Amino acid sequence: MSTLRVAVEPVPDEHLVGAVAETGGSVVPLDQARVLVWVGGPDGFPDLPDTVEWVALSTAGIEGFVDAGVLDDTRIWTNASGFYAAGVAEHALAMLLGGTRQIVRSAKTRWAKDLVDPAVRTLRGSTVAIIGAGGIGRELTPLLKACGATVLAVNRSGRPVDGADITMAADRTDEALAASDHIVLAAPDTPETRHMIDDRTLAMLKPHSWIVNVARGPLIDEAALYRALTSGVIGGAALDVTDPEPPAVDHPLFDLDNVVITPHVANPAGRLTAEMAPHLAENLRRFTAGEELLALVRAGQGY
Amino acid sequence: MSTLRVAVEPVPDEHLVGAVAETGGSVVPLDQARVLVWVGGPDGFPDLPDTVEWVALSTAGIEGFVDAGVLDDTRIWTNASGFYAAGVAEHALAMLLGGTRQIVRSAKTRWAKDLVDPAVRTLRGSTVAIIGAGGIGRELTPLLKACGATVLAVNRSGRPVDGADITMAADRTDEALAASDHIVLAAPDTPETRHMIDDRTLAMLKPHSWIVNVARGPLIDEAALYRALTSGVIGGAALDVTDPEPPAVDHPLFDLDNVVITPHVANPAGRLTAEMAPHLAENLRRFTAGEELLALVRAGQGY
Repeated sequence: MSTLRVAVEPVPDEHLVGAVAETGGSVVPLDQARVLVWVGGPDGFPDLPDTVEWVALSTAGIEGFVDAGVLDDTRIWTNASGFYAAGVAEHALAMLLGGTRQIVRSAKTRWAKDLVDPAVRTLRGSTVAIIGAGGIGRELTPLLKACGATVLAVNRSGRPVDGADITMAADRTDEALAASDHIVLAAPDTPETRHMIDDRTLAMLKPHSWIVNVARGPLIDEAALYRALTSGVIGGAALDVTDPEPPAVDHPLFDLDNVVITPHVANPAGRLTAEMAPHLAENLRRFTAGEELLALVRAGQGY
Repeated sequence: MSTLRVAVEPVPDEHLVGAVAETGGSVVPLDQARVLVWVGGPDGFPDLPDTVEWVALSTAGIEGFVDAGVLDDTRIWTNASGFYAAGVAEHALAMLLGGTRQIVRSAKTRWAKDLVDPAVRTLRGSTVAIIGAGGIGRELTPLLKACGATVLAVNRSGRPVDGADITMAADRTDEALAASDHIVLAAPDTPETRHMIDDRTLAMLKPHSWIVNVARGPLIDEAALYRALTSGVIGGAALDVTDPEPPAVDHPLFDLDNVVITPHVANPAGRLTAEMAPHLAENLRRFTAGEELLALVRAGQGY
């Protein structure tokens, strides 16, 4: 069996080079490669020699590559769809616990026991809705269950999410919000989801409810959120995304003790290749074995 | 079968009254009771009528009652040892994730992506040592395992902790520290554990290591901790306890972006009776059935 020749560009990232080595391949210059692993955006994407049969992109979104016209239909293309879900789910759990256990408020105050003690809530026995339960929801569900929470998954189709106590289709979102102690937003940004969290839906939540957003900023009407946070309508908000990004440095949400904004790091750039490496290794194994690859970019999926 | 008569004093807390009702008992004044559930400290503890056979205290520590001389050896006494472990374990997980996922630093800064992104770590694939793995450690272990961490449990005897990858006796603490990415302190405050975290042991940790303390403040030499936090020896500290408590409002640890201090709320006063209720119900059932009670205070245990 010949060794699989793989180019890792534009830089020979150690984690991805490790994945190639681990699966018995060898890292070669692009003009000798059957596979290109591309760790970057569309800028600087190379002209592909005919030898390249498969291009493995490192991002989940591929809009930029589509717009730049680099995708073709003569090769196999994969993206990183789903590869970062486990990390994002861990971030969502950290945000939720950081809120409910008052880590956030404690970080912004000094031994404010009279404020903090009565506000502490436990995930054990609480109900958490995951709005937009796809890959991230599948990873988050067992974490929440391990903490003793009841999980309500909401997704477009209503197709049951493994491990969730209940899965509801998106047309029952209001019902899920009303039944939950806390909510995690993991939905895509579409015309239907834009400002889905507004004055009306915030009023369905509870005075102790925390909202976690690891999806896209436009899902939340931030002015409505600010009103709910400052009037006791909900307990707090933990946001990894804002609208727009970055937020203004004097954004009023920064001033609130019941808000934390992490700077879009649920899938941190610094960990990207470490997270991708085991998935790339699996795909290299599949490619060599002639099996279908993970995260195939299918014709019609944006191009 | 006669109804078990239970006094809930000094106030008829709803959660504990509910536990009595749930197990078929009735809440009565103290002078008619076979059982006293006492939700308070030693101050104001009543003279006990001869009818009282069992006193259920609501605190894990009983030193105050021993010092006040209220315990006797003619009745059964229970405390709340172990009843709050699950909540404290959840708090420890929240503190650890709050640190490693940079929720803490994000709460203290404003979209500091250049600082936060490279500092984010994942529990998945990391190794966490639980120092003093008793009841809290037993509850924390499955949470850490669900997050994909390797768990090193350290306790006095070295008796294996269910679910931990390795359990070590306390004389191997240095080895555990050196092998870990992060540590959670859950040990009692004894002459042996006082300042166990000092310049020497901090130097065994890693630049990304977070220390979580949900046990007792004196386990940590805070001056040494401050040095380690400000010189890059470790990544951060999440403390629910300090030495002394409360800390001075101008304590230098409050000024650090890689530190959070929660005001001794891992077992919050506001949730105490809600957490105790299911354990009280179980003990009421056992008492009626003539079985051995949970959390018995044994002669020689401090008095």
